Parts: sequence; C-alpha cells; structure tokens
Amino acid sequence: MKINNVAIVGGTHGNELTGIFLLKKWGISSQEVTRPSFKTNLFFGNPKAATLNQRFVDEDLNRCFARSDLASPNKQTYESLRASYLNQAIGPKDASKHDFIIDMHTSTSNCGAMIIFYDDRPLNLRMASYILTKVPEARVCLLKANGDDLPYIGSICDHSLAVEIGPIPQGLLQSNILKLTADVVQHALDFLQSVNEGTAQMSAGALDVFQFKGVISFPQKDGEIAAVVHPSLQNSDYKPLHKGDPIFEMLDGTIVRYEGEETVYPVFINEAAYYYKNVAMSLCVKQTLTFPDE
Amino acid sequence: MKINNVAIVGGTHGNELTGIFLLKKWGISSQEVTRPSFKTNLFFGNPKAATLNQRFVDEDLNRCFARSDLASPNKQTYESLRASYLNQAIGPKDASKHDFIIDMHTSTSNCGAMIIFYDDRPLNLRMASYILTKVPEARVCLLKANGDDLPYIGSICDHSLAVEIGPIPQGLLQSNILKLTADVVQHALDFLQSVNEGTAQMSAGALDVFQFKGVISFPQKDGEIAAVVHPSLQNSDYKPLHKGDPIFEMLDGTIVRYEGEETVYPVFINEAAYYYKNVAMSLCVKQTLTFPDE
Repeated sequence: MKINNVAIVGGTHGNELTGIFLLKKWGISSQEVTRPSFKTNLFFGNPKAATLNQRFVDEDLNRCFARSDLASPNKQTYESLRASYLNQAIGPKDASKHDFIIDMHTSTSNCGAMIIFYDDRPLNLRMASYILTKVPEARVCLLKANGDDLPYIGSICDHSLAVEIGPIPQGLLQSNILKLTADVVQHALDFLQSVNEGTAQMSAGALDVFQFKGVISFPQKDGEIAAVVHPSLQNSDYKPLHKGDPIFEMLDGTIVRYEGEETVYPVFINEAAYYYKNVAMSLCVKQTLTFPDE
Repeated sequence: MKINNVAIVGGTHGNELTGIFLLKKWGISSQEVTRPSFKTNLFFGNPKAATLNQRFVDEDLNRCFARSDLASPNKQTYESLRASYLNQAIGPKDASKHDFIIDMHTSTSNCGAMIIFYDDRPLNLRMASYILTKVPEARVCLLKANGDDLPYIGSICDHSLAVEIGPIPQGLLQSNILKLTADVVQHALDFLQSVNEGTAQMSAGALDVFQFKGVISFPQKDGEIAAVVHPSLQNSDYKPLHKGDPIFEMLDGTIVRYEGEETVYPVFINEAAYYYKNVAMSLCVKQTLTFPDE
C-alpha cells in the first residue's frame, strides 16, 4: 500500500477549538505535518459552527457521511451540504483522492489520548502499536465496524484515525491539549511515512483495545437530566465497571448502580457534547487483538 | 440589620448547569436552603439560554441590571426583558423585597471556590471570614464598586454574593462542583441566620482579598485569537504574576511576557465564556482589609 495523500481535519465539531487552532498553526508553518513521501492537506470541517462556537449548526456533521446520506438529493441542513462539499474535496467516498484521514477532536471526559479506529485491519493496529510506543498513555478504541456504512468523516477513506484528546472544556484552548494532539497526529504521519519507506514494523503483534458496545443514558425526570455521574466514576474512563458499582447520584440523593453481569469499561464519561442526546457514557469491552507477520 | 428574604439565583448564564441543577434539587427538598429566621426564594435566571445550552440568547443577562438599563423604555433583547422581570420579582432595585442575593456561577478557570462581593462593607467581609472558616481554600474577590451603578443581578439588593466554582466545562454537571457550590451557599445562609440571631462574629478582623483591576486580552491575528495561555499560567489563578513572567504562546511559537511593573494576581485564567470578548484573564491586586469591632 502506498500513501499518496493524507487529509487532516479539524473543527469537525465547531466548539472543539484544538483542531481548528492546529490547522491555523500548520497553515503558517507546515513543516510539522509535511512528510517527504506523501502530500498532507488540511481541511476545516465546520467553519460556521465554529463561528457560532457550537458543536454544529443543524445536525452533527460527523454523522452525515453515510453513503445513503451523501447520495440523498434532499439536502437541507448546513451540515448535509458541508458533508457533500467535504466528500468532494477529500473523497469522494469509494474513490477517494486521499488515502488516509486524521480527524481531530476533543472531549470533556478524561479520555487522555484516545485513538479511534473504525475497524481492526492490520494497518490500523500497526499504526496504533506505533503510536503507543511514542505515547504509552494513549488508549486504542475500536468501532469494529468492518463492512458497515459509517456516518463519520473518516469513513470517506478506507483508512482513518479519529484522535480524541481530553479533558478540556468546549470552546477553549489549552497548551497541553494542543501539544498532545499535535504529537499524536505527527506520530501517525511518521508511521505512514515509514509504511511508504518500507520501514514500518511488520512483525506479528498484539494490542489491547477498547471496543465500543453501547451507552448508558442519564436517568430523566420531566424530560430533563435528573442525576449526576457518581463521583467514583467521574474521570475513571477505561477503568472496569463491575455489577453493583455506583453510576449515578439522583436528584433525591439515591445511588443508581450498574446492574449488568458483564464487566465493562466506560469511556466518554460525562461528555458535555452528549447531554443533548441524554448519553452519560459509552461502554466498551476490553480485548486483545493480534495481527500477523507480514 | 434583619434579613427577612434571601434570593438564590441559578442559571443566570444558561450553560452553567450547576446552579440550575441545585435549584431543581432544592425545589424538591428545600431543607438544605431553609433557615428559621428568614424566607429563601429560588430564581432561575435565564431559562431560554439554558434550553439552548448557551451563556445567553442576545446579550449577557448579568450585565443588564444597571439602573439606566432597567429604566430604559427601549427593551428589545430577551435578556433585557428577563432583567425587567427579575428586577420586579427579586427587587426592585433600590426598594428590594429581598435583603440578600446569592448568585451561583461556574467557571472553566481553576477558580476553586471564589466568593465575589461588590464592595467592602463590613457585613460582606464578615460573611467572607465566616465562609473561610468553613471552606479554608475559598478565595475572596472584590469589585470595590462602592457607589457605582452595577449591571450585575446581585446589584438589585444592597447586599449580595456571587459564587464562582471551577474548573468545570460549560454545559456539564460534576458531583464535586455541585457539592462545593451547595456548601458555600449553605455557609452563607448559616451566616445570615447567625446575623438574625445576634450570634454572628462581630469582633474586629482582617481578610485577604483579591481586588479586580483589569484584564489581559488575547493577541489577535485577522480578528481571531492567535495565542494560547502559557502552560505555566494555566490553572495558576491567584498566584503572583511578575514582570517578565510568560503569559502567552503565540501561533508561531514566540512567548509573550508580562511587562507590567506591578505584581498582579490573575484570576479567571482561560475562561471560555470570555473568549468572545477576547479576554484571556482578569487581573487583581491583593489587599488585606480590616473591619472594626461592632
């Protein structure tokens, strides 16, 4: 596989300022994202939402890239039009000009350096392993969506990486989060460079991944959130949640506990961007994936 | 002085969910804010902004309470109308039904438990001293605005307290921030109860306060923020800033340093709510105020 063009996307969500600021920085001094064997192009996902300091204008841009939505003749929202434009500029999906997409996000959860791949094909797992050698505290998450028609911007290409860095409030810049995001992006670019050079590590390996399997919703009262994430769970992303562990403190002080039989690993715990969907956290299972000698 | 009615306000800014959640909680179980010698009334500042998960709809509600604005016949913004309504319900200013206002806010800055008074009259300083005996890590800030016509909701009454708790992202609830806010509010109510009972500490005392004296703006480029708060300053609220200390990292990597001759104490460092005004931090001077034996 030869990588010819890499797309770096920032501001897919307009109030995640880190990626937008890095695009601005790399627009001025591009050497950080320039590699000799491929071309790197920068894309601003949702400039209008950024102007409004909102996640989106009409709908979440990062849910507008399924084939059926891209093919729909009935585009009315700002984001559906923006998705059409970006699909033409980066893709188009299934015939993409770009070989790899890096999409930069932030989270209010204690996600640290989270790298998300959509599937477990070997190039993804090898890139994850490489990034872990450089950023050992990073965590690898997997949608395990092989074959599905995904709505995410990264799905325009066969290969992509979503970088989630946190915790950081929406609408804010912090030096340490900017640095960590830039580091992960540059390690990903370095790996792609090594693939082109034929120097990438291609021996067999294994990797711990957190695979998404569902969400936990906030308890509601009169259509509003009626509980807060239990303090023992706040900031405890990637830690095991066992049956009986507290999840929520209700308005009246009662404690809601996890009732599942299976031990799970919550991530995106108390992510502000998901309140409007009433989602309190995502749940993962932890798996060890292996990849073959090549 | 006899306290007959106390107003507690939450959601003056619609995306500061802590106060809104506490109003909901105290609406269900009021004993936490009930005291035998006065009546406590709860007010939701900006419900429409809260529905939109924004600080405000048209303008900052907490800048709409100057006498000239309240008297203006030309009210067009949602917040100017809301200010009229709240002024009638809580005040009216200069003839207020309520003797004390507690206004609950949050900040993305590392403000901890910040208690803000508008002036240094003895009741305020004594309340601050009392709260410090209960929450020793709290910090007292002062506008030192004696006689000015202030635009804040607390200015409806002669006496008021603004409670700022952080760091917490906008649009988010966290158990520890809810608890700290509720604690400070309850200590303030306990102090007012002791004033009515004649048991409040009335001997002479002294108090360290941070007095607001200005702001530092972000450097800009093409009308946009072109720097990030220097990592040595992030989360360093209340710590001294000396001439030559770094303040910003510019897009091109250069460092901007503080050039003032006077040592100052920054607060609200990197507050997301002030980005739209281009404000990076507020500056205070530190003073020790004394209050007399009574």
